[in-house]
Amino acid sequence: MHRTKVRIVEEALDANNTIAEANRADFDRAGVRVVNFMSAPGAGKTALLERVVADLPGVRVGVLEGDVQGSMDADRLASLHVPVTQLNTDAGFGGECHLDANMVRSALGELPLDEIDLLVIENVGNLVCPAEFRVGEDARIMVSSITEGEEKPLKYPLMFRACELVLVNKIDLLPHLDFDLDRFLYNLDQVHPGVERMLVSAKTGEGVGEWREWLTRVGAPVEAHA
Amino acid sequence: MHRTKVRIVEEALDANNTIAEANRADFDRAGVRVVNFMSAPGAGKTALLERVVADLPGVRVGVLEGDVQGSMDADRLASLHVPVTQLNTDAGFGGECHLDANMVRSALGELPLDEIDLLVIENVGNLVCPAEFRVGEDARIMVSSITEGEEKPLKYPLMFRACELVLVNKIDLLPHLDFDLDRFLYNLDQVHPGVERMLVSAKTGEGVGEWREWLTRVGAPVEAHA
Repeated sequence: MHRTKVRIVEEALDANNTIAEANRADFDRAGVRVVNFMSAPGAGKTALLERVVADLPGVRVGVLEGDVQGSMDADRLASLHVPVTQLNTDAGFGGECHLDANMVRSALGELPLDEIDLLVIENVGNLVCPAEFRVGEDARIMVSSITEGEEKPLKYPLMFRACELVLVNKIDLLPHLDFDLDRFLYNLDQVHPGVERMLVSAKTGEGVGEWREWLTRVGAPVEAHA
Repeated sequence: MHRTKVRIVEEALDANNTIAEANRADFDRAGVRVVNFMSAPGAGKTALLERVVADLPGVRVGVLEGDVQGSMDADRLASLHVPVTQLNTDAGFGGECHLDANMVRSALGELPLDEIDLLVIENVGNLVCPAEFRVGEDARIMVSSITEGEEKPLKYPLMFRACELVLVNKIDLLPHLDFDLDRFLYNLDQVHPGVERMLVSAKTGEGVGEWREWLTRVGAPVEAHA
């Protein structure tokens, strides 16, 4: 029974990858770069996006907002006059815990791909499944809040391995927590040696300049790369 | 295609419920009460268990520890001389994001059911899927850390609805966060009116006495209820 289950999962991931490639081709045709933005619930993804999406020099940003239910984060970002499309995952049962390529594909028609250079896909808050499903992105960013503890890279290694940038958020709380930053960074290097990382605070703005520059580089209009 | 997917999910949940009932019957025969302990990653489940599991008056506790990978939490709890069984969900692919009834069933043979009154099942850190899968428990407890923000009940309503007790943890950080506790409690009552809740801090011990008493009541030996 276990073997069958594994096979079904592998087939589902194969199908997902096929659709992710189709998404990728559509994004390429439109000249749009795509970032898949992931974290545990409450790590601060939306707050970090609020800090930068309306203010990337020369880069027009759109957001695809994934949530089980509701549109609170989408509303927060839309108030910055950035085009935001909401994707809810709760149809049919208790809710999907991640976005997959087909869900993103279902939203393609509603995305203003001609008017943006960079699409940020804010995934459902979850440290497991989002890392398993490519959606057609150029880069994956994960946010880890220091309130979650030092051992998270060891407990959720796939997520920390499956990204090009780790934003270590809520760094302003360091004086108030029993959090060993060196230990966290050591654990991070155990599962993803040398991965780019930035210490940031959406609250105080610490590190936000560096984060904005990174996203600007990724999102720079494709013509500029030619 | 979507309809098919929903049907497959419903069948999977039906099968899960059947196995959960079998687990329930086995727990009843052994006179063991079972609690399913859930939260987002890093909300403090293990730290809250460390505070109480070795010290419930008249209740012998065992722990079933669910993690994608590793046994760090199990090791922490085992050091308290409480029987701990590790269940890892990473076989075959990137890892299951929750425990289901069949995974718990696969561990039954390794649990010292004759020697405990209360089994605490520490689920995988995730605010979506654990709430969808009963495992044969008597009660479900969820932990919400105030660092995760006020809107979590609205964004993950099933999880907040599917529990008998909400532990609002890391309350010691209240002075250092932009967290509106009244707003959080209002949101909680929107999705689960009147659900029992306790403000706690695993770090300072605030509220831990009340939490210990709750768990002691749930775990009191079954004979005592006769």
